[in-house]
Amino acid sequence: MKSFKKYLYFRTTQRREYINITGKVEECLRESKIKEGLCLVNAMHITASVFINDNESGLISDFDKWLEKLAPHEPVSQYLHNRTMEDNGDAHLKRQVMGREVVVAVSDGKLDFGPWEQIFYGEFDGKREKRVLVKIIGE
Amino acid sequence: MKSFKKYLYFRTTQRREYINITGKVEECLRESKIKEGLCLVNAMHITASVFINDNESGLISDFDKWLEKLAPHEPVSQYLHNRTMEDNGDAHLKRQVMGREVVVAVSDGKLDFGPWEQIFYGEFDGKREKRVLVKIIGE
Amino acid sequence: MKSFKKYLYFRTTQRREYINITGKVEECLRESKIKEGLCLVNAMHITASVFINDNESGLISDFDKWLEKLAPHEPVSQYLHNRTMEDNGDAHLKRQVMGREVVVAVSDGKLDFGPWEQIFYGEFDGKREKRVLVKIIGE
Repeated sequence: MKSFKKYLYFRTTQRREYINITGKVEECLRESKIKEGLCLVNAMHITASVFINDNESGLISDFDKWLEKLAPHEPVSQYLHNRTMEDNGDAHLKRQVMGREVVVAVSDGKLDFGPWEQIFYGEFDGKREKRVLVKIIGE
Repeated sequence: MKSFKKYLYFRTTQRREYINITGKVEECLRESKIKEGLCLVNAMHITASVFINDNESGLISDFDKWLEKLAPHEPVSQYLHNRTMEDNGDAHLKRQVMGREVVVAVSDGKLDFGPWEQIFYGEFDGKREKRVLVKIIGE
Repeated sequence: MKSFKKYLYFRTTQRREYINITGKVEECLRESKIKEGLCLVNAMHITASVFINDNESGLISDFDKWLEKLAPHEPVSQYLHNRTMEDNGDAHLKRQVMGREVVVAVSDGKLDFGPWEQIFYGEFDGKREKRVLVKIIGE
């Protein structure tokens, strides 16, 4: 069994941002030389997500608006977590809706994806350095 | 390390539908002859989910009603995504609540499940052909 | 390829409770002697979650209040599922928001975690015995 790991680094310019990282994960897979196995991609921070959905800018806006409705940023005083001098209570909740991680099958040296599957990094409390882990195991 | 993969195909008659696919995944596991490992089951389309919950018809209706409350189908104009000639903006959001994938332990040649765990395919934009991937790795 | 499995048991004193199980999963990993691989941790019951977030008591309260807003326990008659003599319809829904499972990378014999990642067992229908599965595969 082979295993491969790499950290990806992000620092967004906005509080909330959605970045297509499919190409970066494909690079990792090529580097790993693994042909059959599983590829885990997870946010290493608890106010960010890794998720799979459509690379369509309207949809990205829809997600953002919807997450703000489900877990609004303001008023920041509505979250007990923000008593710790943070203002990111909402970001922890948004991340639960979108998920921490994805596990993708590796078949024949490729991410075994349907036609519109793209991997996104979802940032909900940006403007600071964050990490994503890519871990691949297989043969 | 062994690996096994199979696609399952679905075409629902309704826009939203929930199908118990536990038996089909168990068939894949038998075919794979893998005794110890991990089994990934994921929707390959971004308006569908694979999730694990209870096989109880009242609960399935509860999920459906609740998802419609969290991310209503209508008015379709509320989603920017629907400017692309689609009417499935809500389906992309519903899928995030229910999740894209499950990872199930394989122990002693079986899905290592609690007493009520059942795997469901959740369709939120049906009436067209969709695929689910079953990927098993182990020994 | 090595594989390891262990069940963890919980019986909470309250209906809803959030328990940090990171230490227990780390114990499993040490016992497994696996250095590189993947670690799956999942609730084996469908009214409970395993998720990764921050070990901060204010945030835990925020999660609980937010889940009650998204899927209130009462009135119990709002859920068809509760016609089965249960009163846990809400718990099945809450569990979908928080997720069934996490998959964590194992690197160099450790859970490959960011600085604040902690694994929680989220109970939404407690006061009865529940199980969590830890399954680790690798080398």
